[in-house]
Amino acid sequence: MKVLEVGTEKPYLIKIGKGILRDIGRECATLFKSAEKVLVVTDSNVARLYLNTVKSSIETNGFAVYDYVFSAGEESKTVHTYIGIVEWAAECGLCRDDVIVALGGGVVGDLAGFAAATYMRGIRYIQVPTTLLAAIDSSIGGKTGFDLKYGKNLIGAFHQPSGVYFDTEVLKTLPEKERKNGFGEGVKYAVLAGGAIRDILLKGLSDSDTEEFCALCAAYKADVVARDEKEGGLRQLLNLGHTIAHAEEKLSHYTVAHGESVAAGIKIMSKAAYNVGKLKKAEYDEIIEMLELSGLDREPQYTVDDIVKAATSDKKVHNDGINVVTVAGIGNCHIEKMSFEQFREYIK
Amino acid sequence: MKVLEVGTEKPYLIKIGKGILRDIGRECATLFKSAEKVLVVTDSNVARLYLNTVKSSIETNGFAVYDYVFSAGEESKTVHTYIGIVEWAAECGLCRDDVIVALGGGVVGDLAGFAAATYMRGIRYIQVPTTLLAAIDSSIGGKTGFDLKYGKNLIGAFHQPSGVYFDTEVLKTLPEKERKNGFGEGVKYAVLAGGAIRDILLKGLSDSDTEEFCALCAAYKADVVARDEKEGGLRQLLNLGHTIAHAEEKLSHYTVAHGESVAAGIKIMSKAAYNVGKLKKAEYDEIIEMLELSGLDREPQYTVDDIVKAATSDKKVHNDGINVVTVAGIGNCHIEKMSFEQFREYIK
Repeated sequence: MKVLEVGTEKPYLIKIGKGILRDIGRECATLFKSAEKVLVVTDSNVARLYLNTVKSSIETNGFAVYDYVFSAGEESKTVHTYIGIVEWAAECGLCRDDVIVALGGGVVGDLAGFAAATYMRGIRYIQVPTTLLAAIDSSIGGKTGFDLKYGKNLIGAFHQPSGVYFDTEVLKTLPEKERKNGFGEGVKYAVLAGGAIRDILLKGLSDSDTEEFCALCAAYKADVVARDEKEGGLRQLLNLGHTIAHAEEKLSHYTVAHGESVAAGIKIMSKAAYNVGKLKKAEYDEIIEMLELSGLDREPQYTVDDIVKAATSDKKVHNDGINVVTVAGIGNCHIEKMSFEQFREYIK
Repeated sequence: MKVLEVGTEKPYLIKIGKGILRDIGRECATLFKSAEKVLVVTDSNVARLYLNTVKSSIETNGFAVYDYVFSAGEESKTVHTYIGIVEWAAECGLCRDDVIVALGGGVVGDLAGFAAATYMRGIRYIQVPTTLLAAIDSSIGGKTGFDLKYGKNLIGAFHQPSGVYFDTEVLKTLPEKERKNGFGEGVKYAVLAGGAIRDILLKGLSDSDTEEFCALCAAYKADVVARDEKEGGLRQLLNLGHTIAHAEEKLSHYTVAHGESVAAGIKIMSKAAYNVGKLKKAEYDEIIEMLELSGLDREPQYTVDDIVKAATSDKKVHNDGINVVTVAGIGNCHIEKMSFEQFREYIK
């Protein structure tokens, strides 16, 4: 098992290893001595596989356990599901000392986290990711929220969990599409951090490397989050490839998976850097190789003009331009402010 | 004009004086140099009286101004109004640098503040209170949120405004009922702080004292908030009379005004302290006199048993008891933990 600390204002642990799902109750008992009730929030797919394991682990440790299960899928990430969770929390009588467990992928983590952020002005919660993407990315750092019809994640709050617990055994039940989705963010960490993450992806991730790989990605994210908890600057690095990704996702009406779009974004940004002579050929080739090995060597399905147009309505956009993460090398990325025109030229 | 500073993590000013409504635009221009758009959120009563003044002041200072007006009344404090505000913000294209102005009483401040707290994970906003209660209490300190059918303020966030601007001239249009509502919290400050607030209320508040009175109450609240921004302890003092008030309000299905219930709560808590020999007769009499002068010398409409029963389902309740503010003297109140049984005995 790997244990990392996220050095946010209130620090918390990330634990990664086999069989952790059966320890959730014990972790709750250690973390939440004043709590009586635990509400497990999950989706219909995850509930079928893991809800009973987690609930009985929590029950065994002396808590009253409730669950809220919603339909799996990005289309559930709405105010309706959010209100369903908090109304159920109120009906179950959760009070300020009580706890939410987010058991699932990114959608569950975002919704359950936002419920915890806002129920009674904030209660405690833990993240129990069940996808690769959630484990190495979305479960760490306290970004929570839901979508409006006008755009994704338009509603949200920063609310750090009290802990993140990833059972690597869940990867055995992960659909191939979801696995790829996670690799999109995995390649992102390889390009941002280089080092051992790059080495593992370049030789192809094997089962025996999984725990180490997840821990390396999580450690990189934890470090960035600790240094810039509320995305004032540095944390924007984690948006490598994401300006293009969000644009493609939006244009496709979210039929393209996030990780695939991130991969396309990384490719375009790497190619652009190579074209202007900022990124060496050898490193560019390595990035493409990592994408290929992950089954993610692809470009966005839309023209540069469409991408730029969609990107200007992204919520990360400031009134006078866009912050873009550029690739000067593997392990050497930078945040650069560009006007929309400069960005169009850059990725053309 | 009085100017106070609230010493929270990000400090902000409270300005109280005549004609400030016409300066809102200038204040925005000073505070929000990177903003382009301002969304004024208000209710139907306030819109009729002050929306044009505020909008044209903001427009004159170079911003694009939008407004969102909802039906006046506590029954608007729901997720529906909240979603209406944030969807309109998205439709108007507000981005992270843009601003919300909460123009109105407590309901407007809570809803607009929560919209600002959660739109794009938090944008900036100012409070422009138009009731006495909002001016001296709810507009200061960053408590925002809305009600669920299971209880008031069950959803919320701490999100400090960038400034609070109170135009004392709005009191001229304030209905008598709303004025009383404000005095409930006014007497609370007199009992908590004593000193000049007590002196003013004991001689009866005159027009010439209003600015001073509001500034004294606001300063007391600002000091408590600065020392305990997220209500970890000290800030609970501000709940003097509120355990009983929330119970009465709930039992009456919110037909009793908040300030009237707070007054009743203060009376019961003062009488209880006097009965157990903790509060001197002379001070008890002064508290009753302040309530009388404010037209608020009343008791809850319900039995002690009903009050205690309703209070145990209040969200401020911890699993094992209740934090109650007791009155040992004017300017000498304390937070005490009681079991429900002790609380029942105490107020009997």
